[in-house]
Amino acid sequence: MRTFKLTVAYDGTAYVGWQRQAAGVSIQGCLEAALGDLAGARVAVVGAGRTDAGVHALGQVAGVRLDLRIDPAALARAVNARLPEDVRVVDSAVAADTFHARFDAVAKSYRYRLLHGPVTSPFLRRYAWHVREPIDVEAMTAAGRLLVGEHDFAAFQAAGSTVRTTVRTLFDLTVRRVPPGDWIGAPGADGTVIDVRGSGFLRHMVRTIVGTLVEVGRGRWGPAEVERALRAAERSAAGPTAPPRGLFLTGVGYPR
Amino acid sequence: MRTFKLTVAYDGTAYVGWQRQAAGVSIQGCLEAALGDLAGARVAVVGAGRTDAGVHALGQVAGVRLDLRIDPAALARAVNARLPEDVRVVDSAVAADTFHARFDAVAKSYRYRLLHGPVTSPFLRRYAWHVREPIDVEAMTAAGRLLVGEHDFAAFQAAGSTVRTTVRTLFDLTVRRVPPGDWIGAPGADGTVIDVRGSGFLRHMVRTIVGTLVEVGRGRWGPAEVERALRAAERSAAGPTAPPRGLFLTGVGYPR
Repeated sequence: MRTFKLTVAYDGTAYVGWQRQAAGVSIQGCLEAALGDLAGARVAVVGAGRTDAGVHALGQVAGVRLDLRIDPAALARAVNARLPEDVRVVDSAVAADTFHARFDAVAKSYRYRLLHGPVTSPFLRRYAWHVREPIDVEAMTAAGRLLVGEHDFAAFQAAGSTVRTTVRTLFDLTVRRVPPGDWIGAPGADGTVIDVRGSGFLRHMVRTIVGTLVEVGRGRWGPAEVERALRAAERSAAGPTAPPRGLFLTGVGYPR
Repeated sequence: MRTFKLTVAYDGTAYVGWQRQAAGVSIQGCLEAALGDLAGARVAVVGAGRTDAGVHALGQVAGVRLDLRIDPAALARAVNARLPEDVRVVDSAVAADTFHARFDAVAKSYRYRLLHGPVTSPFLRRYAWHVREPIDVEAMTAAGRLLVGEHDFAAFQAAGSTVRTTVRTLFDLTVRRVPPGDWIGAPGADGTVIDVRGSGFLRHMVRTIVGTLVEVGRGRWGPAEVERALRAAERSAAGPTAPPRGLFLTGVGYPR
């Protein structure tokens, strides 16, 4: 048996999320089916973290133990040949036998994209949240700074969640104005990209941070409301949950 | 009755093409349904040109005569509220009563996108042709120059087409290396963008030009083969037809 570390990109639009569920098609389920077909046996794939329905990934990490003599690049090609086109293994490596994609992860990075302008783009509708009005990137940056560091993010998790602790560390948060550019069908449109990196994230935490920052960017909220949300530690004190379509898990960090 | 000129963007993936057909959903059909619902009557929408199944548009132009007292911006909003999300009216204006979207068009622009790299992107799979190997942009540019001007493009039209004349004028053709950039989920990938503008295009003409240029870019063909294809004026003399997914109708030109 060897342990492989797979880096996986996916368009989450058509899926119930990363995790296998009783009903609906999951990314984990697709990978297990493709790898199981290759290995001729049932396999279990461990993901670095769950992503919700409609959330995408550029660099999800999955670990799998396989009784296969195959080099990692050939494994990636063989798995991709068996996966739907909206799920791709973009990197593959042999890992230590003790590697665990979730327990070993020390950082996760997410990117959230906002598209501005009078009309959404048919080509970006699945990959960005359309926020018509221009928003104040400087105010969002200043408010984002209040969230960086170790905090109780209880106000920023999905209502009804039960976790041992709601304290998490945000390493950094940046807000940049990035026009979609030449490759994307949104001529004249403007965009905002929000990048966050942290030790770990509660359920809906990135989307609630984004929803809160957009309230700030619209001028409805100021820094005081963001500080109050942190202190209140109640979901109702933070802003709305941004839609899943704009969210991408961009990478997972492991100790060297 | 007033004549409106609508500029329309669409993701062609789910459609049988621009033109209404006996079976399947067309862009024209969607627009006629949305506008008919608004006008409370059957309406006919005239497009500047057809696009094939799976081909996209950033700037298709459609003309429609409506018995509606509504300003053009309000019309666009009302139509968008009735259209599927992958079809958007991006601009709307009142046109002269004599305006005809097809007969009045004097130029059309298309863009074709190629994505390079070992793996395709889940986010670009509908919007680019994945050509794994790097290709020679300079050789493609030189070969493209041979096609600019007035030529008999018979070798570059779909087999079995019957049109009055296969002579067309290509105003310009450019090939550029453009990486997909920050907004797109193809980290480290490279891309090529081919822009063509001409008086009009035969069926599959842009896709056959692209298929031919890619043969040149791969080093399989040289300028001699491109000149031979023009002279032969037979479909079999030109390169393969590039897939529809990479093609965008970017704009339609009218006399000022």
